[in-house]
Amino acid sequence: MGASDGDSATWLAGGRHGASRLATLIPTALHGMAAGITERNGPIPSGGPASVAASLAAAGGTKRLPKTGIGAEQALEHYSTLLAAGTADPADPSCAAHLHCPPLAVSVAADVVAAAMNPSMDSWDQAPMASELEAEFLTGIAHLCFPANPTADAVVTSGGTESNLLGLLLARETTASTIRPVCGANSHHSVSRAAWLLGLPAPVVVPCQDDRMIPEALAEALAPLGASAVVVATAGTTNTGRIDPLGEIARICRLSGARLHVDAAYGGLLLCSQSLAPRIAGLELADSVALDMHKFGWQPVAAGLFAARNAADLSALTVRAEYLNADDDTEAGLPDLLGRSIRTSRRPDAFRMAVTVRALGTQGLGALVERCCTTATEVNELVERHPALQSWGKPELSTVVFRPRGADDDLVARVRRTLLEAGTAVIGRGALPTGPDGTSQLWLKLTLLHPHTTAEDYVELLDRVVATAAAERGVPAPQSPVAS
Amino acid sequence: MGASDGDSATWLAGGRHGASRLATLIPTALHGMAAGITERNGPIPSGGPASVAASLAAAGGTKRLPKTGIGAEQALEHYSTLLAAGTADPADPSCAAHLHCPPLAVSVAADVVAAAMNPSMDSWDQAPMASELEAEFLTGIAHLCFPANPTADAVVTSGGTESNLLGLLLARETTASTIRPVCGANSHHSVSRAAWLLGLPAPVVVPCQDDRMIPEALAEALAPLGASAVVVATAGTTNTGRIDPLGEIARICRLSGARLHVDAAYGGLLLCSQSLAPRIAGLELADSVALDMHKFGWQPVAAGLFAARNAADLSALTVRAEYLNADDDTEAGLPDLLGRSIRTSRRPDAFRMAVTVRALGTQGLGALVERCCTTATEVNELVERHPALQSWGKPELSTVVFRPRGADDDLVARVRRTLLEAGTAVIGRGALPTGPDGTSQLWLKLTLLHPHTTAEDYVELLDRVVATAAAERGVPAPQSPVAS
Repeated sequence: MGASDGDSATWLAGGRHGASRLATLIPTALHGMAAGITERNGPIPSGGPASVAASLAAAGGTKRLPKTGIGAEQALEHYSTLLAAGTADPADPSCAAHLHCPPLAVSVAADVVAAAMNPSMDSWDQAPMASELEAEFLTGIAHLCFPANPTADAVVTSGGTESNLLGLLLARETTASTIRPVCGANSHHSVSRAAWLLGLPAPVVVPCQDDRMIPEALAEALAPLGASAVVVATAGTTNTGRIDPLGEIARICRLSGARLHVDAAYGGLLLCSQSLAPRIAGLELADSVALDMHKFGWQPVAAGLFAARNAADLSALTVRAEYLNADDDTEAGLPDLLGRSIRTSRRPDAFRMAVTVRALGTQGLGALVERCCTTATEVNELVERHPALQSWGKPELSTVVFRPRGADDDLVARVRRTLLEAGTAVIGRGALPTGPDGTSQLWLKLTLLHPHTTAEDYVELLDRVVATAAAERGVPAPQSPVAS
Repeated sequence: MGASDGDSATWLAGGRHGASRLATLIPTALHGMAAGITERNGPIPSGGPASVAASLAAAGGTKRLPKTGIGAEQALEHYSTLLAAGTADPADPSCAAHLHCPPLAVSVAADVVAAAMNPSMDSWDQAPMASELEAEFLTGIAHLCFPANPTADAVVTSGGTESNLLGLLLARETTASTIRPVCGANSHHSVSRAAWLLGLPAPVVVPCQDDRMIPEALAEALAPLGASAVVVATAGTTNTGRIDPLGEIARICRLSGARLHVDAAYGGLLLCSQSLAPRIAGLELADSVALDMHKFGWQPVAAGLFAARNAADLSALTVRAEYLNADDDTEAGLPDLLGRSIRTSRRPDAFRMAVTVRALGTQGLGALVERCCTTATEVNELVERHPALQSWGKPELSTVVFRPRGADDDLVARVRRTLLEAGTAVIGRGALPTGPDGTSQLWLKLTLLHPHTTAEDYVELLDRVVATAAAERGVPAPQSPVAS
């Protein structure tokens, strides 16, 4: 093979020399990453978008692809430092805005091998063992979601958004009449986006109380629709982590003949915890379920899963492409992978998920889920004890929703942006109908996905929110009840 | 932070200790990978699906997720060995069936940092520098595709399938009447699948000659449709690597007012080679273009790109979610990333693409593309000189299409499966209308994406095809014209 093999920029990750070449280049990337982390020294770079753009420009950003290269080592060192210095790092407890987890090192290490071997999950002859491992892992996931249904099956997706789309798509394909999506006012925006994408009517929106779907309102919405509806319930909302009353919703769906998809992208991994699993009881009654292992599960994005109670429903995804799954090849025993996804080329994301579950066991994962939920409960108690803060309510998962007492929406939004700009904390926000007469009101939120923290790690952050709100209002900050 | 931090299975990849923890775990994964590669000793494990399934079962496969873990080191070593031993490795020249490239080590190394820092590309506060780097890289890609259009823009996708879907989706959203997709008989199956997914009518299929769309036939198909059509042309078909006459197709589309999307998932990176770029001239006249850097580009799956000549067309993807891109945040200067994809959480795949381009330059990438195309031309010459083989035609990209002389379809299919089962070669197949009266006929193909090979690396493989065909027919194998 050619001479260019000598240039480290053209080294291959696979083949006989792959491992040794990765062993040469990865330390350079990690060196840059460590330097960037030291340089950042906080959960996110300070200065906001303008400052980050300026750092890139200063580092030699260009608006054209470079014609000539600078070599592998220099590119790795340079870009890794830049990325790590300019990242919002969820491994810092003060980076707690979104369902954005700090990934486990074991998953990232496993992904190196997946990327180097590069199995593509659209045909067996591109992914022999990767497809076997995926099938085994997905059988386990299907059983986790539907323990009483041996005909359950699961597929890998690019995340909750694709999983919710699959939930609507399978409903569309298994229903003779035009299907109508029905979802709670608390549902993720991807539900209505999926309806739009699939050419379906916009979802009927069912009112919520305390960010949970109201069963009676669902029954009313379903009355004129009957079996031509697909209901999307949520097990862990993005705003508050609330869980819809799944058992009751399933019963109502069954009575009307509607299909039920549960968006458990956030809460689904509670199934790994004996003590928490009862909170999502009823999940096993759904027709399909969305799970994300890049939330609880601590995988790098993306690690989406979609489980179907009846494997036969997945046949809606069947597609034939002579070059990938010819009939005679399938008859000759080559597994047909193409109908396992709406994508064609597909990363073996199941590999790092499977390695992680093998390393920790479901018990180990469940313990990390419990730690996050416990921390959230404790942080909410800190909020409740803090005279300058108001809690929205007790966490059901790991989301703490709160606001500075007496603040209006504008102040709430400014506090969040000020902390972001300062680079000291990354906090989330969400509008909830808690204003007078149920009008929308803005709240702050902490989505706690750090598996090693305790409430103590958030004391300073809460004090910072209070101090910032006071400063924005031009009044002196009250003392922390904890520090005092 | 908690005590569980001491167990390597719960180590985080980010934060202060991330780099050192990855430096501890990744060598274990690479050690397993190297052991697996040695164990395999060929492009793919021998024995076919049954044998791979048996290896997994022998290695302790289970149909339930394990309750208790075995720790990070053991899980990494075990699964990495299994995956590498059981993979179809495109870094082996004899693994040449599909548009399945051997990834560059520099890209895999960069991806470690991306996975560890885990920016999620759906909001700025999850991906400050990653979103800046992506924007810069995509500006470069847009300019590469549409050098004369400063208003061009590009987005990252999960591959050609999603890019083709975006091509149809933007057409649907920018056209008042019901849009009708029109594509060549040579187009990728994802085009009709996208139409199905989007609730559009099935595509009108335009006949091809030599696996290229016939312009006159396109004009005829467009006559009754006019501006309510979106035409999908192909720059590099999956079966043969043929390129549609893009300039002529663009002219016809312009006359009828139809939109034009070019699926250049395979051929798009020819833009990096001065000598080869003219082969896809006319690409810049399209409304949108699909490119895959996990083909030419040597990225691990997925590295899809979608470029739009008019950035404004991408506004069809606009979506508002209060927690990710609230109006007041956008007004306050926080970039709105949500409308850059149909996904929500999204890996920073642009990072490793950008690092690779920085390491090699477009010239360096172009040289690798040239090497593949040259090798394909030379391998086709070997085929033409071989008395027992028939060539389908001269390669336009890097696909060599051939068959044993006098073989029927059944024999062609069996030769491919026999080599696959033996673990000695991974060869592709494709049906082309070359039989009597244009009936479908099965051909073998080599899709050459190995950037370091020369024709010599494929002599033995061609001889093996000939010998296998002879053995299947029960006749002695003719001698190789090269070896003789």
